[in-house]
Amino acid sequence: MKPFNIQEAIQILETTPGVLSPLLRNLPEGWADAREGTDTWSPFDIVGHLIHGEKTDWIPRMQIILEYGKSKPFPEFDRQAQFRDSKGKSLSQLLDEFEELRKKNIGELKRQQLTDDDLGKTGLHPDFGEVTLQQLLSTWVVHDLGHLRQIARVLAKQYKDEIGPWEKYLPVVSE
Amino acid sequence: MKPFNIQEAIQILETTPGVLSPLLRNLPEGWADAREGTDTWSPFDIVGHLIHGEKTDWIPRMQIILEYGKSKPFPEFDRQAQFRDSKGKSLSQLLDEFEELRKKNIGELKRQQLTDDDLGKTGLHPDFGEVTLQQLLSTWVVHDLGHLRQIARVLAKQYKDEIGPWEKYLPVVSE
Repeated sequence: MKPFNIQEAIQILETTPGVLSPLLRNLPEGWADAREGTDTWSPFDIVGHLIHGEKTDWIPRMQIILEYGKSKPFPEFDRQAQFRDSKGKSLSQLLDEFEELRKKNIGELKRQQLTDDDLGKTGLHPDFGEVTLQQLLSTWVVHDLGHLRQIARVLAKQYKDEIGPWEKYLPVVSE
Repeated sequence: MKPFNIQEAIQILETTPGVLSPLLRNLPEGWADAREGTDTWSPFDIVGHLIHGEKTDWIPRMQIILEYGKSKPFPEFDRQAQFRDSKGKSLSQLLDEFEELRKKNIGELKRQQLTDDDLGKTGLHPDFGEVTLQQLLSTWVVHDLGHLRQIARVLAKQYKDEIGPWEKYLPVVSE
C-alpha cells in the first residue's frame, strides 16, 4: 500500500479521461450500453456518474471543508443523477464533458496548493460523519479506479456464454 | 450478453494496447510494481503475462486448431513466464512490445478471414479437452478485460488505508 501523496493522486486523476476515452470510444456498437443485469450500470451510465461526481462531489466537498469545516455537512450525493442528466447525450459528448470537467477540477485542486495542515482538515459526511480532506481526495482516486474496473468487468461479462470451459480461469465473468 | 462477432472481437482486441499505455505510462513512480499481497501480480507483471499470451497462446493455438484440429493438443501455457522474460526490461519497453505483438497478431487473425465453419473447429486444451476456435477467440477478449480490471483493482487497493470510512462504498479495495 502507498501513503497518500497529493502529486501522485493528481497524476492518476489526470490520467483517467485519457484511459476511458480510448476504451469507450473504440467499443463496438451497443457495447457501451451493456449491463451486468437489471438495475446495474452500463459504461454509458458510469461516465454520467463520473461527470456528476466532478460537478457535485470532490471539488465542491473540498471547498466546503476548507471554507466551513464541520459546520456545514456535505449535501447528499445523487447516485441516480446520470439517468436524468445523460438523457439525449451521446457517449462521445459525455466523454468530452468528463474530460473538460476533470481538467477544470484538477486546475482548481492545484490552485489550492494544499498543505499537510489543509489535508488534515475535516468535514461532515452525511452518512458517516467526520472525514478528512486527505480521505476525500484518496477516495476520488480509488473511485476512478473502481469504476474503471467496473467497466472492464461489465464488458468482459458480455462473453460469459461464449468462453465455454475457460470460465474456470476467468473469474471476471462471475464476479 | 452478446453473441460472439469476429469484427467486434477484433475491435476490442485492437483497443487494449491504447488503453493500457496511457494508464500505465502515466503512473507515479513505483505504482506499476504495486501488488495486492504476496504471490500476486503487479501491473508490470501483468503486461509481461499479456506479452507471453501474444507469443504462445492465442494465435499459436488458433493455428494449431486450423492445421491439426484435435490431433495435436495445445502446449501448456506458462503462467510464470513473465518473471523470467520481463527481467531487465522497463515498463515502457514491455508496453511497446505488447503493442507490436498485438498488432502483428491481429493482422494474422484478419488474414485468416475466418468463416463460421472455421470458428466451429475444435482443438484440445491440455486441462479441459475439446474447445472451439470461437471459444478461444472469445476468451482472448475476456482475458484482456479481466486483466484491465485486475490492474485497476491492484492500483485502487494502494489507497485502501487512506480512504477511511469510504471503504464501505468502495468494494474494489476489498475484492
